[in-house]
Amino acid sequence: MPIPHVADPLGVILLRLQRSLERELIQGLQAGGYPDIRMRQLSVLDAVGADGAKAAALAARFDMTKQSMGELIDDLERSGYLGRAQDPSDRRARILELTPRGKVATEQCRQIVQAIERRYESLIGASRYHETRMSLAALLEHLEDGPVS
Amino acid sequence: MPIPHVADPLGVILLRLQRSLERELIQGLQAGGYPDIRMRQLSVLDAVGADGAKAAALAARFDMTKQSMGELIDDLERSGYLGRAQDPSDRRARILELTPRGKVATEQCRQIVQAIERRYESLIGASRYHETRMSLAALLEHLEDGPVS
Repeated sequence: MPIPHVADPLGVILLRLQRSLERELIQGLQAGGYPDIRMRQLSVLDAVGADGAKAAALAARFDMTKQSMGELIDDLERSGYLGRAQDPSDRRARILELTPRGKVATEQCRQIVQAIERRYESLIGASRYHETRMSLAALLEHLEDGPVS
Repeated sequence: MPIPHVADPLGVILLRLQRSLERELIQGLQAGGYPDIRMRQLSVLDAVGADGAKAAALAARFDMTKQSMGELIDDLERSGYLGRAQDPSDRRARILELTPRGKVATEQCRQIVQAIERRYESLIGASRYHETRMSLAALLEHLEDGPVS
């Protein structure tokens, strides 16, 4: 029997769950024909989403330098997940968009996450899973609503 | 009244809670005299910990290139959080260690996280908070123990 994690602070548990979920997601994508995609790249594709995004905005959002984000975007373009279009509101600016391959990958991502969550539900039971999700959602409500002291 | 997050999948809720916790932690550190520290840097300092670590191991752990991790480490050295010592088991290798300033910063980090969690507890009530932590810990137990399908 492994040592339980009940003594861990919530922050540590959240981080470990997040990591476990990410690991399973990456494994699912590898099995689904996306062997080379990394979590940070996936987050960027998700942020680009249906509306597209500019490189500078992505760098700010992920707290990365423009240069590091530029390299990440170059990788995603080379792998065929991202393309560039001209920004209709600014002739000099380029806007990043998901390619068809990028759209399929992010959709597959969503389906894998759904399957992972169904498994979570079966592991601790539907009512306990539901309780937990409600409590965390309530906590998030307070945190994103109220002032941060 | 804001729209509740109860419809969100658990993965999204976990991610948002994680981000909220990180934001508060960074604000706490800024207020405590560490105005320039970023989350990724903090994670690296935490991974270096009391035992020290090698740059290559840190790069692998954080899924970063050696070059990107090298830049991050250089920043942390310049800011006085990290230092280098010779590895006693390998004359050519250097091992990274927390400086006294680095140790104080990571300790302050732990205290801020504890304060955040006490606040979480007060926001949704001690028994609900306890339930939630136990359920998530149970889930984590299954996930880290059993095979990942």
